[in-house]
Amino acid sequence: MLGKLYGVGVGPGDPELLTIKALKTIEKSEVIILPTKEKEACYSYHIVKEVYPDIDKKELYCMPFPMRKEKEELEKAHAEIYERVKQLLNRGKTVSFLVIGDPSIYSTYAYIHQRVIDDQGNARMISGIPSFCAAAAALGIPLVGNEEELHIIPASYDILDTLSLKGTRVYMKSGKKLLKLKEALMSQQQEQPYEVYTVSNCGMPNQSKPPSRFFVILGICHR
Amino acid sequence: MLGKLYGVGVGPGDPELLTIKALKTIEKSEVIILPTKEKEACYSYHIVKEVYPDIDKKELYCMPFPMRKEKEELEKAHAEIYERVKQLLNRGKTVSFLVIGDPSIYSTYAYIHQRVIDDQGNARMISGIPSFCAAAAALGIPLVGNEEELHIIPASYDILDTLSLKGTRVYMKSGKKLLKLKEALMSQQQEQPYEVYTVSNCGMPNQSKPPSRFFVILGICHR
Repeated sequence: MLGKLYGVGVGPGDPELLTIKALKTIEKSEVIILPTKEKEACYSYHIVKEVYPDIDKKELYCMPFPMRKEKEELEKAHAEIYERVKQLLNRGKTVSFLVIGDPSIYSTYAYIHQRVIDDQGNARMISGIPSFCAAAAALGIPLVGNEEELHIIPASYDILDTLSLKGTRVYMKSGKKLLKLKEALMSQQQEQPYEVYTVSNCGMPNQSKPPSRFFVILGICHR
Repeated sequence: MLGKLYGVGVGPGDPELLTIKALKTIEKSEVIILPTKEKEACYSYHIVKEVYPDIDKKELYCMPFPMRKEKEELEKAHAEIYERVKQLLNRGKTVSFLVIGDPSIYSTYAYIHQRVIDDQGNARMISGIPSFCAAAAALGIPLVGNEEELHIIPASYDILDTLSLKGTRVYMKSGKKLLKLKEALMSQQQEQPYEVYTVSNCGMPNQSKPPSRFFVILGICHR
């Protein structure tokens, strides 16, 4: 594999939250991979297009990851995407795989990255602003200071154990579990008051209209 | 206060990890505040200067925060810095306060931000790449996927309780406690093996020469 793969974090929505490095990486890439079925439905495509209108002059490929499927199906899908990426890299292409937020935090890109590395290929992650940092900035509040701990929790799984964590909790990806999460936090509130903030679609034109894919809850406990 | 204060996250070290928004905010500011005693000793100054050499044409002020002092002294120092910032804002200045990493995560800027807001002034945070995201990218590994939790822990405080946390633990700001932290992680390793990665000065010319101010430990547990 002579080509090079970049997992490019494009941040949570505001196009100006792209880093200079992300922009330069996209500029020098011949191929851009979008992680959705169609270009027009792809958030990361629209984010990049705002600050880099020439994205349409690149070779664009849509490679959607399946959501919430059985492990076997998931692995099959990853293998298929990897085969397509590998073909591009074998042709010597420089490829940017767009990722919402940061590629190291709950990104499906990481599977493809690992397979390229395992096959002795070239793959690099380009950091992006995580949604919880942008949410804190939008709210104008710090997430943590001094001795406080910060816990990032995927809220679509069982969250019961997380209610006793000290410090600040950020619940991400609540999806259909949003109501359940709210109930759990509200019943905890009755025992011990703490601040709860909600932000959704942070930095996008429809910011703060939950429920949505990029829903973030910041539960700030003072213990 | 007619002016506007921006807490600008400049990321962990690599100048190209500045966001477009951070760069634009610095460009439009008349005053730049550096959180150290001297310009030449200021990491965030050097980070910005690489991508924005005109920084020296701005009004530059050094406003160092004291490290590890008594609460009373700290509050006095914050009050003094706030008074200086307030004078600038009263003169209608647009002010960028540079912050390593992201302003919502362990940033002393947050105190000044809160005081400006409490006084009905204008203050906004501009997100930056947190060091742990850049560390993961430098290592080429994801921090978390699927149902995994991510815990950000200030390692200069008592970390005993954190050893039982599920998922990925990132220990930041270990400082003089670095050896103690290593010992604790190594003794835990004997009971249950897990991966430990270390990165320091991530993205800076002297990356990975611990111990240092920006030391980050990623302890990846597979539980």
